[in-house]
Amino acid sequence: MPDHIFYTMQKAGSPFLDKRLLEYAGEDWYPFHMPGHKRTPLEFPNPYSIDITEIEGFDNLHHARGILRDAQERAAALYGAQKSFFLVNGSTSGILAAISAAIPRGGVLLMSRNSHKAAYHAAYLRELETVYLLPSRTEFGISGSIQPAHVAQALEDLPQIGGVFITSPTYDGVLSDIQKIAGIAHAHNVPLIVDEAHGAHLAFSSEFPDSALQCGADVVVQSLHKTLPCLTQAALLHVNSNRICLDALRRFLGIYQTSSPSYLLMASIEQCIRYLKKEGREQMARFAQLLRQFYKKARTLRRLKVFEPSTCPPEACFAHDFSKILVSTGNSGLTGKDLYDALLNGFHLQMEMSSGHYTTALASLMDTPEGFLRLSAALEEIDKKSPAPSLAQSGRPLDAQAIYQIPKPGMSISKALECPSEALPLKGSIGHISQEYIYLYPPGIPLATPGEILTGSLLSIITQCQRQGLPIEGPADIANNRIRVVKG
Amino acid sequence: MPDHIFYTMQKAGSPFLDKRLLEYAGEDWYPFHMPGHKRTPLEFPNPYSIDITEIEGFDNLHHARGILRDAQERAAALYGAQKSFFLVNGSTSGILAAISAAIPRGGVLLMSRNSHKAAYHAAYLRELETVYLLPSRTEFGISGSIQPAHVAQALEDLPQIGGVFITSPTYDGVLSDIQKIAGIAHAHNVPLIVDEAHGAHLAFSSEFPDSALQCGADVVVQSLHKTLPCLTQAALLHVNSNRICLDALRRFLGIYQTSSPSYLLMASIEQCIRYLKKEGREQMARFAQLLRQFYKKARTLRRLKVFEPSTCPPEACFAHDFSKILVSTGNSGLTGKDLYDALLNGFHLQMEMSSGHYTTALASLMDTPEGFLRLSAALEEIDKKSPAPSLAQSGRPLDAQAIYQIPKPGMSISKALECPSEALPLKGSIGHISQEYIYLYPPGIPLATPGEILTGSLLSIITQCQRQGLPIEGPADIANNRIRVVKG
Repeated sequence: MPDHIFYTMQKAGSPFLDKRLLEYAGEDWYPFHMPGHKRTPLEFPNPYSIDITEIEGFDNLHHARGILRDAQERAAALYGAQKSFFLVNGSTSGILAAISAAIPRGGVLLMSRNSHKAAYHAAYLRELETVYLLPSRTEFGISGSIQPAHVAQALEDLPQIGGVFITSPTYDGVLSDIQKIAGIAHAHNVPLIVDEAHGAHLAFSSEFPDSALQCGADVVVQSLHKTLPCLTQAALLHVNSNRICLDALRRFLGIYQTSSPSYLLMASIEQCIRYLKKEGREQMARFAQLLRQFYKKARTLRRLKVFEPSTCPPEACFAHDFSKILVSTGNSGLTGKDLYDALLNGFHLQMEMSSGHYTTALASLMDTPEGFLRLSAALEEIDKKSPAPSLAQSGRPLDAQAIYQIPKPGMSISKALECPSEALPLKGSIGHISQEYIYLYPPGIPLATPGEILTGSLLSIITQCQRQGLPIEGPADIANNRIRVVKG
Repeated sequence: MPDHIFYTMQKAGSPFLDKRLLEYAGEDWYPFHMPGHKRTPLEFPNPYSIDITEIEGFDNLHHARGILRDAQERAAALYGAQKSFFLVNGSTSGILAAISAAIPRGGVLLMSRNSHKAAYHAAYLRELETVYLLPSRTEFGISGSIQPAHVAQALEDLPQIGGVFITSPTYDGVLSDIQKIAGIAHAHNVPLIVDEAHGAHLAFSSEFPDSALQCGADVVVQSLHKTLPCLTQAALLHVNSNRICLDALRRFLGIYQTSSPSYLLMASIEQCIRYLKKEGREQMARFAQLLRQFYKKARTLRRLKVFEPSTCPPEACFAHDFSKILVSTGNSGLTGKDLYDALLNGFHLQMEMSSGHYTTALASLMDTPEGFLRLSAALEEIDKKSPAPSLAQSGRPLDAQAIYQIPKPGMSISKALECPSEALPLKGSIGHISQEYIYLYPPGIPLATPGEILTGSLLSIITQCQRQGLPIEGPADIANNRIRVVKG
C-alpha cells in the first residue's frame, strides 16, 4: 500500500492491537488486499511454541549450513534460480541489498522512476547517482511499462551506469519486457535487478505473464506475502547470474536484516514453498479461471470499468497481471474513494486501496469463488445505482504532462539529504533544491526527489492536485503549503 | 547468539523447517536460551487469521496516527520514555537508525569495542570515523564494563565526536555505569545511545540493575524477544531527549525496516506491553527469587563455577544482570563445549551458547521452578562426575593482553570495504590493512575491523587461539589461514 494511504479511523472494538485483530478476524470482512493468504487459517502451531533462536539443529540464516541452507535450496529449485535467500525484512531488505551489492559506492544506477522507495533509499545510503527511466503513460492514468529502447539509450549515453533496476509487475500489475531489457543490460555487461515484489506467483501459470527469472533477470526480489500464502514480511531474493558478487550480497543482507531472524517467518516461507511445489500450478489454474469469469462479468458493467491491457497500446502496457483488479469509476460520477467506501461499508469488501478515479482489489490463489461472487455482485449493484457523471468530476486522471517530466538534478539524493535545510512556502521554492520526495499516487512517480530543482510547472501540478483533492504526499508540512529545500 | 555459533547438525526428524519446529516443540528440550517467552504457548490466534496489512482501522507503522500510535504511546508510558517506536527488524534496525540519525555522514562515533555488529554496520553505511572504548578486563574472560573516565577522556581529546554508543548489559550480562556516562556525554552535549537489547526486563524489578532509560540515556534500543514474552524480531526504540532529531530518526527507521511490517510481530509487542504493565513487577520478583535460590545452590558446586560479579573489582563489572547465568568449567577438566554437550545430551537442557571455558544459560521471567531445578540438578551431577583438571586444559580464558589492544587504523571501515582486495596468507598479511572483521568470543571484541592495520602480535593471538581450538571468526577463508586485505 502506498504510504499516502492512512486508514487510521478505528470505528469500534478493543483499543489494543492484538485484541482488535482477533475481533476483526471474527467479523465478515472479505480481504481483497494483501497478504496473499487472505487470512485463511492455514495449519500452523501456536507461534510461541515454535519461535526459537539459532539452537542445535536449526542453523543460522546469515551463515546457513544446515536446515536453512536446504530450505533455501528448495526455494531456488522451485523458482529455477542459481541461489535463493530467505528475507525476513521484506522485499525492502532485498532491494537495499541487491542495489548495494551491484553498484559500488558513488556509482550510477539506472532505475525506473516509479520504483519502490527502498530503491531510492539504497541510492541514498550508497551515494549513488540516479538516472531515471520514465514509464509509459496510459490512458488509465497508471504508470505503464518501461521501454527497452529507453534502457538501451541510457546505457549507450552513460557507460558509467553500473546496474539497472526495474519494477515489474507494478502495484497496478503492469509488466515490462524484461527479456528484452535483460538482453540490453547484458550486452552492456551490467546486471538487471527486478523488483518483482508483486509477482511471486507468476511462475506458476502460463495464463499469467512470464516471471522475471524466466526472462533472464540477474537478481529478482519477490514478496511471498503479497500474492501467495505466506506471512507478511517474508520474501525471497533470487540470483541467476555471475554479474553480481554473492559475497557482497550476503554481506549486505547481513547488514539490512536483523541478526535475530524470526523462525516463524522462515517456517512460513518453507510451508509456502512446499505448498507451491505440491499444488501451485493446479491452484493457479483454478485461480485464473475465477479471474476470467470475473473479468467477463465485469465487461457488462455500464459505468464502472475494470482495467484490461487490451485498452492500451502494447508499448504502454507490455503485459498485465490480471490478479490486480483495477476498477475505474469511469463515468459513474463516483471517485475512487467513493467506490472504495461503498464496497467497504455496503458490502464489507475491504479493497487494497483507492485513488482519485479507481480502486484496487488484489486477488490471489487463496481467494474463494464466494469472494469473487461478492465482488461481482457488489460492483453490479453500485454500477446500477451510480449517479450520472457530474461535469466537475473530481476523480479523473490528471491530464498533466508535467507529471511525466523529471526535474533537473541539482545534486544527488544523498548530498541533498545531508545539507542544512529550510522550509519555504511553495511559491517561494521555485529554483531551490528539494530535500523531500513529492509523490502523487497514481501514477506513483515522484514529482520530485531530494536533490532535484523545483520548477514552476511542478508547483502548478501540486496546486492543481490540491484543488482536485488528490493527495500530494511526502513533504512533512504540505498541509501548510511548505516544502523543505536545501538551504541556499 | 554470536555469529560463530553454528549448530547445523540435524540429528533426526523432518527435513522441512516448519515440520521440524513442530516436532521439536513436542519434545522435552528445556530452553535456557532466547527468546524470553521460553516457548510458552501464550494465548494467540492462528497467525494467518490476524496477519493483515495497512487496512481500514489498523494504521500504518511508518506514519502512525491511530491504533499503532496509541500502542507505541502505551509502550513509552510503561518504560518512561518521551517516545517509543515498535521495531519489526529487531534491535538491529534500531541501532542502525539511532546511530544514523545521531551523527551526520562522515562524522565521528565513540563506541564500545564490544558492540553488536549493527553498530559497525551503521558506521560503514554512514562512513563514520570510529573511536573505540575498550571494556575492562575480567578474570572470568568476558568483556567488563566501559569506564566513564575513558568516555570523558575521549570526549575531551576529540571534540568532533558526535555521539556515544554503548552496550549495556552485554550478552554476558555486564552493565556499565550509564548514569555517569550519560552525564559526561551531556556535559559535552552529545547523545548517549545504549544498546540495551539484552535488558528490556531490567526496569521491572529493583533486584536487577537500573535500566539505561532510568539512568538518563538519550536513546535506548531493547529487544523485547530476548528477555521477555515476545516474538523474535520484535524490539523497541525509546527516545528520552532532544539531543536526537526525531524527524531524522523516523526517516532512518523507514529506511532500515520493511514497508510491510508484520502485524503479528506488532500484536505480540502489544500483548507483551500489556502483560508487563499488569504483572511485570510481580513476575520479575518471583523470577528474582528463583534466581537467588539457583545461585545459592550453585555456590556448593565443587569444580564448576557460576559467575558472580562479587568476584570482580567494581570497575571491571559495574553491575551484573544475574538472569545471564555463566557457568565456568572452572577446574573441572571440561571445556565450555563439553559442559554444553553434557547438559544437552544428558539432560535435554538447551543452553544459549558455549565458549572455550564456559557455557551460558539465559533465564527469563517465563522460566519455571522445574526448569531451574533441572538445571541445578544437572550441574550438580556433572560437577560430581567431572574429571580432575588436566594440565593442558584447552578451555581456559586466553591470557593474551593483545586482545585488549586495538590495531592502528589505516582508513575508515567504509573506505576499506570499498577498496579492491586480495586474500593473503596470515603470515604475509602483517602491515596490510584488513578488509575483514576478526572475532574471538569471548570476549566478543574484534581483534581487528576493516581498515585496521594487521600486526604481528595480533597474528600470534590468532595462531594461539587456533592451537587452543578457540574459534576465530569473521575471515571467510580462515580455515586455510588466509585473510582478505586492502590491495596494496
